[in-house]
Amino acid sequence: MQKAIAEFIGTFTLVLFGCGAAVIAGPGIAGPNTVGVLGIAFSFGLAIVAMAYAIGPISGCHVNPAVSLGALVAGRMSVGDFITYVIAQVAGAIVGALVLFIIMKGKASGWEGGMGTNGWGAGYLGEYNTASALIFEVVATFIFVVVILGVTHRLVVHHFAGLAIGLTLVMIHIVGINVTGVSVNPARSLGPALFAGGAALSQLWLFIVAPFLGAAIAGFVYKAGILYGGET
Amino acid sequence: MQKAIAEFIGTFTLVLFGCGAAVIAGPGIAGPNTVGVLGIAFSFGLAIVAMAYAIGPISGCHVNPAVSLGALVAGRMSVGDFITYVIAQVAGAIVGALVLFIIMKGKASGWEGGMGTNGWGAGYLGEYNTASALIFEVVATFIFVVVILGVTHRLVVHHFAGLAIGLTLVMIHIVGINVTGVSVNPARSLGPALFAGGAALSQLWLFIVAPFLGAAIAGFVYKAGILYGGET
Amino acid sequence: MQKAIAEFIGTFTLVLFGCGAAVIAGPGIAGPNTVGVLGIAFSFGLAIVAMAYAIGPISGCHVNPAVSLGALVAGRMSVGDFITYVIAQVAGAIVGALVLFIIMKGKASGWEGGMGTNGWGAGYLGEYNTASALIFEVVATFIFVVVILGVTHRLVVHHFAGLAIGLTLVMIHIVGINVTGVSVNPARSLGPALFAGGAALSQLWLFIVAPFLGAAIAGFVYKAGILYGGET
Amino acid sequence: MQKAIAEFIGTFTLVLFGCGAAVIAGPGIAGPNTVGVLGIAFSFGLAIVAMAYAIGPISGCHVNPAVSLGALVAGRMSVGDFITYVIAQVAGAIVGALVLFIIMKGKASGWEGGMGTNGWGAGYLGEYNTASALIFEVVATFIFVVVILGVTHRLVVHHFAGLAIGLTLVMIHIVGINVTGVSVNPARSLGPALFAGGAALSQLWLFIVAPFLGAAIAGFVYKAGILYGGET
Repeated sequence: MQKAIAEFIGTFTLVLFGCGAAVIAGPGIAGPNTVGVLGIAFSFGLAIVAMAYAIGPISGCHVNPAVSLGALVAGRMSVGDFITYVIAQVAGAIVGALVLFIIMKGKASGWEGGMGTNGWGAGYLGEYNTASALIFEVVATFIFVVVILGVTHRLVVHHFAGLAIGLTLVMIHIVGINVTGVSVNPARSLGPALFAGGAALSQLWLFIVAPFLGAAIAGFVYKAGILYGGET
Repeated sequence: MQKAIAEFIGTFTLVLFGCGAAVIAGPGIAGPNTVGVLGIAFSFGLAIVAMAYAIGPISGCHVNPAVSLGALVAGRMSVGDFITYVIAQVAGAIVGALVLFIIMKGKASGWEGGMGTNGWGAGYLGEYNTASALIFEVVATFIFVVVILGVTHRLVVHHFAGLAIGLTLVMIHIVGINVTGVSVNPARSLGPALFAGGAALSQLWLFIVAPFLGAAIAGFVYKAGILYGGET
Repeated sequence: MQKAIAEFIGTFTLVLFGCGAAVIAGPGIAGPNTVGVLGIAFSFGLAIVAMAYAIGPISGCHVNPAVSLGALVAGRMSVGDFITYVIAQVAGAIVGALVLFIIMKGKASGWEGGMGTNGWGAGYLGEYNTASALIFEVVATFIFVVVILGVTHRLVVHHFAGLAIGLTLVMIHIVGINVTGVSVNPARSLGPALFAGGAALSQLWLFIVAPFLGAAIAGFVYKAGILYGGET
Repeated sequence: MQKAIAEFIGTFTLVLFGCGAAVIAGPGIAGPNTVGVLGIAFSFGLAIVAMAYAIGPISGCHVNPAVSLGALVAGRMSVGDFITYVIAQVAGAIVGALVLFIIMKGKASGWEGGMGTNGWGAGYLGEYNTASALIFEVVATFIFVVVILGVTHRLVVHHFAGLAIGLTLVMIHIVGINVTGVSVNPARSLGPALFAGGAALSQLWLFIVAPFLGAAIAGFVYKAGILYGGET
């Protein structure tokens, strides 16, 4: 139960502060008070740093169904735990998006209803097509989970894991916000989409399929001993 | 006495360099020489990193009455120490704001008297209402103190605590500067408000009530063993 | 073989996310959605942080032929390994640039074909001449490899190496993007140049010669015991 | 001799990459390719991170006469070593400024001769007066050296020292670039001033006096056991 609570709080924080940076302080707000795309990238990544050190010792701080799938495929997690984790993560993401929605309702003006949702195509940031969005999300999640499973490998593990994983997510957001807004995490896409509706819901499938695919490949790389095999 | 001196220096640094970034180099200054909202966020957070490693071994580097309340509720601090800490923190915040005030008095032009105070409502940054301000401050302080009590838990503690806590504060500022300017710390709100007066003083109550409430809830979570209980 | 795979993945990540930040989110894109030069600098540096902790335990995470040359000159690597590493690095850089090229092909408009290539002279960023470009690349690579060989010296080594090296690369990019776009890495220059052609190919020689020269000098400094000799 | 070489390389790097960020990529350059004040702040701070881990084990990585004075006053350094260190630091700063000067000579246009010098008063950034400049430099150096002597105290010391010190310098620059350009280091002020001349030379005295004063006070705090005394 502590693990589920930890995953709930972690995913809640990731969505509230990651998507919150985009909605409250992204490039779309009027005047010079934006944190820019770089600020959003840091907010997502530092949410992982914060939670990795606060709740990592309890649940491992997956806060992401794709990461849990990677751990499952790599043979580091049971199916029962996987299901528990995903439920807690999705619940945390929804409540995180809800709190963000309530805060935004209290803004006098200037909010168009955006919730930091993911997407692609005409009208979405850099206007990349479906293939580009799919490739980016698969590759980025693959690299993300390669880092996560690498820095937490039993032959490697040390206290730098949380920092390295969080800074990897900063890097991924620096590059990918203009492509898809960066998911690499189905829960992070689902929560805000429920409140935004429209394209965010109709395009949600890609942000479930692509992160799961990239993470599964990364999990297989570790399961097969391609990176950390016999030698170290 | 060393603990009180440490808390004084720490809170002095947090206010001088955190609020100083907003006043000296915030988005309001003329020309391109601003550090932006992201720069202010880093200045607040890196002040915590700096002090956590410099004075943390002496006092634990609370530099925040809400953090001390969280530690009190969690059963990690005595009432006597709590009172000593809060007095030292408030004194440090006032002297930090005073030094900032004196430095600003020496600026030829372009200073409107702002001191990096917290606030909300019409005319304050993103113009969020009281409810949004209250919710943000309670939730942000809760998450902040969950991280602090988590990374310093006896089952977790290692040298990453200072970095993780400081980067958490960066994240909170990235999101929240547009909402309330971010307090999560009654002393940080009080110091500048004394020199700015006006709305900063009349709205000060929220930045005492909300951080204390969020921190107390976080303290209770640890006291009750909800996150780190029997299992680890 | 694991070492070669690790170097391939590492250099792939460096090029895709480093050059990707420049192409997808650099100062050239329309609107306010850029990460700026600072964002590009962090993307290159954090790619090193990510890979240092993920694959460092396997291959040492050189992901750069100049770094491998420095290690060779310092007497820390065999000639056979050097050749294997360089082949894997170049292959990773080419595939990383290929994936970036494919993603960009899917952008509706606004892409001029840039690939984050290095260069100098008329029309290239700050328009520095050949001598300035050469001096910057030699000195920057020298400092980069001094840091790398220093923090991984047998008298020094600890888990901070990856972070220190990555943040050094952030620093180098902050300064040097306006001069040469920053190479300090022949593979990072070669990959994108193959897809961009033109000046990127005709100027490629400098980004092979200068990094190799700077790295070799740094390797000699360690080989000769100038920095870490008998005493420590 | 290794210590002197280490201090030379460290101060060379600090000046070339710190001042280099201001001159090559500061807010003054044309177009959107600036790293902004925040980028300059990171370049100075990350130069310290880089050097602390690369050469720290050799010389302690003072790279700053004020830091060496603080160590001298705190009783952690001999007078002979202090003199050796200062000579090496000043030499490194001059050569660092020389290399920056040579690189800038190769820029086609747009360079007004600035060298990232410190200053105050009419025409210098935020136009603060002498008193403000003096107060800022004394207080900032005091805090800087409190952090340095704290994180390297025999009761505290661990591998986080380099990171904490570097990030403290980032924080100081975020706030202080608009006030004095931030010295807190007489060598960093001297090197560029020799090449820029004019006000940078006539105002140099403050950037020798104020950092030495702030550092000496910090050294006394540790010598007197005010922070780390009998108890810890």
